[in-house]
Amino acid sequence: MLRQDINELLTQTGPGTAMGDLFRQYWIPALLADELPEPGCPPVRVKLLSERMIAFRDSDGRYGLMDEFCAHRGASLWFGNNEAGGLRCAYHGWKYDVTGQCIEVPSEPDNSSFCTKVKLTAYPLIRVGDVLWTYMGDPATQPDPPEFEWVTVPSEQTYTSKRWQESNWLQALEGGIDSSHVSWLHSDGLKNDPLFKGSKGNEYNLNDMRPFFEVVESDGGLLVGVRRNAEEGHYYWRITPWVMPAFTMVPPRGDHPVHGHFWVPIDDENCWVFTFDYLPTRAITPAELQAMKDGRGVHNEYVPGTFRPLQNKDNDYLMDRDAQRRGETFSGIRGIAMQDASLQESMGPIVDRTKERLVSADSGIIKARRRLVQAAQELRDDRTVPPGVDTTHHRIRSVSIVLPKEESFLESCRDALTATPGVRQTSV
Amino acid sequence: MLRQDINELLTQTGPGTAMGDLFRQYWIPALLADELPEPGCPPVRVKLLSERMIAFRDSDGRYGLMDEFCAHRGASLWFGNNEAGGLRCAYHGWKYDVTGQCIEVPSEPDNSSFCTKVKLTAYPLIRVGDVLWTYMGDPATQPDPPEFEWVTVPSEQTYTSKRWQESNWLQALEGGIDSSHVSWLHSDGLKNDPLFKGSKGNEYNLNDMRPFFEVVESDGGLLVGVRRNAEEGHYYWRITPWVMPAFTMVPPRGDHPVHGHFWVPIDDENCWVFTFDYLPTRAITPAELQAMKDGRGVHNEYVPGTFRPLQNKDNDYLMDRDAQRRGETFSGIRGIAMQDASLQESMGPIVDRTKERLVSADSGIIKARRRLVQAAQELRDDRTVPPGVDTTHHRIRSVSIVLPKEESFLESCRDALTATPGVRQTSV
Amino acid sequence: MLRQDINELLTQTGPGTAMGDLFRQYWIPALLADELPEPGCPPVRVKLLSERMIAFRDSDGRYGLMDEFCAHRGASLWFGNNEAGGLRCAYHGWKYDVTGQCIEVPSEPDNSSFCTKVKLTAYPLIRVGDVLWTYMGDPATQPDPPEFEWVTVPSEQTYTSKRWQESNWLQALEGGIDSSHVSWLHSDGLKNDPLFKGSKGNEYNLNDMRPFFEVVESDGGLLVGVRRNAEEGHYYWRITPWVMPAFTMVPPRGDHPVHGHFWVPIDDENCWVFTFDYLPTRAITPAELQAMKDGRGVHNEYVPGTFRPLQNKDNDYLMDRDAQRRGETFSGIRGIAMQDASLQESMGPIVDRTKERLVSADSGIIKARRRLVQAAQELRDDRTVPPGVDTTHHRIRSVSIVLPKEESFLESCRDALTATPGVRQTSV
Repeated sequence: MLRQDINELLTQTGPGTAMGDLFRQYWIPALLADELPEPGCPPVRVKLLSERMIAFRDSDGRYGLMDEFCAHRGASLWFGNNEAGGLRCAYHGWKYDVTGQCIEVPSEPDNSSFCTKVKLTAYPLIRVGDVLWTYMGDPATQPDPPEFEWVTVPSEQTYTSKRWQESNWLQALEGGIDSSHVSWLHSDGLKNDPLFKGSKGNEYNLNDMRPFFEVVESDGGLLVGVRRNAEEGHYYWRITPWVMPAFTMVPPRGDHPVHGHFWVPIDDENCWVFTFDYLPTRAITPAELQAMKDGRGVHNEYVPGTFRPLQNKDNDYLMDRDAQRRGETFSGIRGIAMQDASLQESMGPIVDRTKERLVSADSGIIKARRRLVQAAQELRDDRTVPPGVDTTHHRIRSVSIVLPKEESFLESCRDALTATPGVRQTSV
Repeated sequence: MLRQDINELLTQTGPGTAMGDLFRQYWIPALLADELPEPGCPPVRVKLLSERMIAFRDSDGRYGLMDEFCAHRGASLWFGNNEAGGLRCAYHGWKYDVTGQCIEVPSEPDNSSFCTKVKLTAYPLIRVGDVLWTYMGDPATQPDPPEFEWVTVPSEQTYTSKRWQESNWLQALEGGIDSSHVSWLHSDGLKNDPLFKGSKGNEYNLNDMRPFFEVVESDGGLLVGVRRNAEEGHYYWRITPWVMPAFTMVPPRGDHPVHGHFWVPIDDENCWVFTFDYLPTRAITPAELQAMKDGRGVHNEYVPGTFRPLQNKDNDYLMDRDAQRRGETFSGIRGIAMQDASLQESMGPIVDRTKERLVSADSGIIKARRRLVQAAQELRDDRTVPPGVDTTHHRIRSVSIVLPKEESFLESCRDALTATPGVRQTSV
Repeated sequence: MLRQDINELLTQTGPGTAMGDLFRQYWIPALLADELPEPGCPPVRVKLLSERMIAFRDSDGRYGLMDEFCAHRGASLWFGNNEAGGLRCAYHGWKYDVTGQCIEVPSEPDNSSFCTKVKLTAYPLIRVGDVLWTYMGDPATQPDPPEFEWVTVPSEQTYTSKRWQESNWLQALEGGIDSSHVSWLHSDGLKNDPLFKGSKGNEYNLNDMRPFFEVVESDGGLLVGVRRNAEEGHYYWRITPWVMPAFTMVPPRGDHPVHGHFWVPIDDENCWVFTFDYLPTRAITPAELQAMKDGRGVHNEYVPGTFRPLQNKDNDYLMDRDAQRRGETFSGIRGIAMQDASLQESMGPIVDRTKERLVSADSGIIKARRRLVQAAQELRDDRTVPPGVDTTHHRIRSVSIVLPKEESFLESCRDALTATPGVRQTSV
């Protein structure tokens, strides 16, 4: 249970808020790279941390992310013409380059320096992997680009999708940290999903409904260790890393791709869920890729032409009571991603955490909130650089492993938890 | 005309409001019985008096009505699995019985007593007639179950439907008390509706557009007597009982079924209208039942799969100006129920009663508001049990009758106004 | 850039606001005449200056515009029966004449004078041209009826449409005053639209992207003169009159019809755009009329049965990126009217003018705002009759003309700027 003021601190990320300032210390995913596929392609509206912006790629292929609205009289630049060297407003022809600098005001005299004084708020937009990242904070403290393994392996080894979730970012993140719901909500996926089924670990998962949590602070955030009973004298460990503020990885299963999420606030009642699958040492197979595109695993299907899931709150997520009754799904909802989204959205846009009743299985969530609050406060009070900004914190992996009961997961998995090029994931 | 503060007092029924407290003294209809048709059937979302709840029927057939959201982290129990002995949350498997008591938290140790300390707000849900009733007040003052004749006659003699009305409950109730609009708004129904037409009383109704109101306080609320001219030396009386807070009966016509409504606040801008037809001494005929299911009489058609009327504000209630011009309907709207709903919703979600101009024909409405205000205030100040809680107040009937001019309707109809098993309704 | 309080003053037009009071000094378009085509036709809901009203035409053909809601209990009179001599509420039969006077309360005794005391707020509604006009101010200061040439020429010489724009009235008006966006946003129209193309003036328009503004105060508002280079030693002048508060005319092109707009606040976030084409001295040809009805020129297509444009913000105005890329349209939006509407709506319902950056080409807009503010303040402080109320201010025309560089447009065009019956428009 949280105090109301702490819940507000954690869930509000607009300009000037404490958590908004914290998010503005990091590179965060802004778009999929293929949303801006080529030089001079159409601009795209983007809302992040409650700021409405336009993303575009100029005729030289450079990426830009800036205020959506023309500095002149406020028309949306979404209608703009993406011309040589910049984006030209459709209303009166004012033109901007990727830095937000106005480079032409056609109605002004040729020798006027007026346009040099006009500059839109803009942020860097860079491609790392299949994702376009932005940093919305003070240029003086801009960190190095992200080094998460998911975006640094070769292209054929990784796949990313994104979806719109109609809830605050925090209740989405909490689902990513919370390893205990898997045995219930996703029990069908462990048995049937082509990107999940068939691993030895799934059996441990389904056989022990009372996991034990051991949550350890890491340099970048947390390592949420969860153990279940395995063979005599052994535990099955699943280790979920959280890198601040919003990156989580699901422990892998057998030879299946490793997956995880980046939970990015759109505004206080909506978030983007960037969802990835990758393999450290082999290409994704055509069958795996097709399954991802078909919305299996942690991906989902879409309302055509949008990033809104086809199963959404307006259609009760296509709840199938008969499938639920027959035990084919536990919640009646099809697909792991939408099982999470449906429950999290059902809590309301911003869940009232003054009413919750947390238990030991929520210790990952409890510690993550504490680190977020602490980091936000130390940033505000002392300008302390928060965990996860340092890119060495990015080189981390999730792990699933069977260990003798007496072994510490932290000691035994030090290497397995490190993203090392050319080394396979540790997965059962 | 009402003062704004009185209008607010009468229209606000959420937790902690004066009128909300008053409603919480009574059993009120929550669902149709066939919404929870069998043990272990799917749970149903219900909102009443601004409280969001889940209704379900456990594997033993017991009914439960409790907070919609799991005590753990606030996920909706609508996605839950209705298992042996209770409803299990789809997120982490917490399980609740029909009293709201948590009976299992799977992640806790077997010997933990944790779940015994977790209980959702819950209310009794009982079946009386074809309706599931709840009492949302203090258990210490829970009254006896409802005894309205409509829900106590044998099943084949009664039929109930419900519809969503997009207005505050009070302007819906006021339509039920207001006998003077019938000659105008419903004039077509008196002539053509299979559940209304053909009675002698209809002629009186249509021939005298200036009814005289005589409104009398009853033990449970009001008796709204309305007289129109009949044969020489006689009046045609129509007597509408209102039992506090929200039960009204329309005076019957000939041998047609008797009908009425229970007007139940969903929140301050929406209400449920429970609509019934019944006969004290005979079964509903197949033709009558079909007409009710077809939306005739005081019933209506639906948007498939919902309780929203097919004719609603988004489609201007399928207004037919040609039918209006030809005089087939007075307002252009088809059907008695939707004629009322369309006008009442057109006033806005909560009508501004500071602007109204009431006349003598509104004396029923005026007196009903006064009794509501008085009861709410006396409850708040002195915990006085309000009228209508005592189930003897339920045993009442509407009446239509022709009386010599000199006779008092109250004296003459004392028996007719009492619901007596085996005795036919008094109806002209 | 405006101060926030000035932006609010200019954009708020509800009862009791300064700009609302200003609008209430003028006759303004309320409906198209063919919305009330014949005596006794169906009533129409109208919202103007944030007041919800009902317009109707009684059995004698008289027009009425009054409060939408019955004085009795607030039901909408839209459901009313338009009977002999008045509109009768569908709920209890109260009847009103076109002045808002209640002329019958059926439930009251015949000799009652009650209804004489009941009167709805009502405004005069008169037909001038193909438009129904209302005056919502103090009857004591009601001006003479409008004398704009568009509504005084013979019927076959004029055509008017209207559309709903989802923005405040001021950002719509500003588009009408702003002559500099034409070369950019509407460049395709000048080349291809059947009601625009082929004039000599278009060439000047497209060849000089840096027009010079000379804005002159007129008795009724402004004359926005814009000159572009023409042949050696000559300027091409386009002169846009603005008559306060909300009437603008586009300078004509060749022999095409003259066009313009009246921008009428619905409420603070919506406006009606009345759009006209007319010819001072000849009939509109069948081909021209068909083009107007097809949505060409400054007109548009509609969502069937509504005044909402078929291209609207819910479908991104049917943006065609390929047509934009091929240079067929500058903004990707088809049609001059929707090019304007899309950009203006994209600014948000009420654009934040504290953030704008105005340039010399905006001098018309700047001066128009100043006159509006001044007129509103002088009206409030001294009851000064504002410009444009005097109907002599209405007898004005837009002009397009080529003049020797040394000539003043104002001197040279004095006659051309005056609407004189029988005299052709001055147009290049």
